[in-house]
Amino acid sequence: MAIPKTVQWQGDATSGVVCIIDQTLLPAQRVFLRLSDTSQVIDAIQRLAVRGAPAIGVAGAYGCVLALRQGLGQAGLESIARARPTAVNLRWAVDRIARASGGDPARALSEAKAIHAEDEASCAAIGHHGAGLIADGMGLLTHCNAGALATGGMGTALAPMYVAQQQGRKFRVFADETRPLLQGARLTAFELHEAGIEITLIADNMAATVMQRGWVQLVITGADRIARNGDAANKIGTYGVALIAKAHGVPFYIAAPRSTFDPACANGAAIPIEERNGRELRWLGATQTAPEGAAVFNPAFDVTPAGLIAGYITEDGIKQAGQIAAWLGA
Amino acid sequence: MAIPKTVQWQGDATSGVVCIIDQTLLPAQRVFLRLSDTSQVIDAIQRLAVRGAPAIGVAGAYGCVLALRQGLGQAGLESIARARPTAVNLRWAVDRIARASGGDPARALSEAKAIHAEDEASCAAIGHHGAGLIADGMGLLTHCNAGALATGGMGTALAPMYVAQQQGRKFRVFADETRPLLQGARLTAFELHEAGIEITLIADNMAATVMQRGWVQLVITGADRIARNGDAANKIGTYGVALIAKAHGVPFYIAAPRSTFDPACANGAAIPIEERNGRELRWLGATQTAPEGAAVFNPAFDVTPAGLIAGYITEDGIKQAGQIAAWLGA
Repeated sequence: MAIPKTVQWQGDATSGVVCIIDQTLLPAQRVFLRLSDTSQVIDAIQRLAVRGAPAIGVAGAYGCVLALRQGLGQAGLESIARARPTAVNLRWAVDRIARASGGDPARALSEAKAIHAEDEASCAAIGHHGAGLIADGMGLLTHCNAGALATGGMGTALAPMYVAQQQGRKFRVFADETRPLLQGARLTAFELHEAGIEITLIADNMAATVMQRGWVQLVITGADRIARNGDAANKIGTYGVALIAKAHGVPFYIAAPRSTFDPACANGAAIPIEERNGRELRWLGATQTAPEGAAVFNPAFDVTPAGLIAGYITEDGIKQAGQIAAWLGA
Repeated sequence: MAIPKTVQWQGDATSGVVCIIDQTLLPAQRVFLRLSDTSQVIDAIQRLAVRGAPAIGVAGAYGCVLALRQGLGQAGLESIARARPTAVNLRWAVDRIARASGGDPARALSEAKAIHAEDEASCAAIGHHGAGLIADGMGLLTHCNAGALATGGMGTALAPMYVAQQQGRKFRVFADETRPLLQGARLTAFELHEAGIEITLIADNMAATVMQRGWVQLVITGADRIARNGDAANKIGTYGVALIAKAHGVPFYIAAPRSTFDPACANGAAIPIEERNGRELRWLGATQTAPEGAAVFNPAFDVTPAGLIAGYITEDGIKQAGQIAAWLGA
């Protein structure tokens, strides 16, 4: 089994580098970038060479070591924190390094490694709690990529699959390709296949026919933000998958660490939904696929109501929607 | 308003040509092919320059005029009928030309024009019966392309939209892009935009969020084959759209001529589902999007159970599932 390491620090605080796998080139090319300059880390985050909120947090934390080593001080840390404003983990990680390091690269590195280790432990705990849902011979379905490539560890939605595999169970995973950016095809199919898990790629619009045929017994996806009542924002298409699972009596689970739950959001209506450039749908690479004049609606996320979610697989166990507020102490 | 003419005969039987718009180049280029040789017609059908069962039937019928003019006789007609074995309309149209023409190109042309005119009339009747479902200010959603480009007339699923527009109503249509071959983006968005109908392109996985926002009051799609009990095979993804529409209380209609109803099929389980090459999902143009080793499931169609279908918009009016057998005389 080979779960990819999406972010790593190599070397010591004085001469070490941030090593990331360039996700924009997967699955065709496996290129590792060795980043020794703060601006390279910012660029990697901005062009999605590293993506997934937890992975961005870890990459940003290591980037802070470079910034302090280069003598860029607080301004350098701030430029990293601003690389992607929507990734809450990035700001959180940079602030934590600023507080803990006192400007010293060595202390920054040890805090960054702590952040990385905590993320890894959280992923592993999610994996162990979720693995109990996966029985031998089952069919699973996931959407987008909430795997090792998106975190500092073995992922969130994919972690239960990795643990169930370690425990010796065999199962099959259907990966929605996840238009428009194809994270399911490019990243989930890649990392599960690398790990030796049986993976079948489908277009997003095939999830319903796969469930109609009785091939899926469990759906697990990640989440980008979960409200206090359990409504969950995740990659566009997740809500449709949850509806289709419900219609076929297939349980739909969200896997996410506590940091994804937002006590400040009462429900899904309070979660802002980013809309992206229509070009992502109007063009496929260099080929125009839709007339320029046609409008495009391209939301990056949708909100799945708590009522469709069988449970939330967290590092503290599987929670029900009604337990979230008390668990968060909110 | 400009509804594209996907197939036309230009000239007389002695020197005329089959003129088709090359759908493989849409929407970026609008190239009309003038086909004067039987082999060119066969090639155009096989490489999907002309597609959609009714449009293929009309193109094949005109191709027979060329075959008879070239002295290819019954063998020439047979080679056209075999260009795409799954398109029932093609075999039916060629057989009809063979019977009516007695081998004479002029009589073949007049029969081909009759086939074309009947298809046009059937589309127009579907349009008139379906237009009554479309109210001013409505939002509609469609999947794949069952429009003018797929027929000899104004289409099936899109015909009610064209007629409602002619009657002066304003409405907005969401077009699913329809992976993997993008007929929604390339063809439906193109022809509705050309016709001046407000069109918004979405990825297939966005239909649920669009309905959740209350933007859709009516779904209409075409069908490839409808069983006696009303179960309908159509482009992959249609079943998921029907489930999502049901969950939001949005009526889901199928528009199709009587020739699409198959009295020999008792229900959806009897409809064979074609699976296509996995390369359609593993590659986007020249870019590999998924690892070679990952399996791909790529069915071209799915089956929507009759229970999810609010009605069938036919040339003889809007039918309910329970009326189909009697209507067909089966």
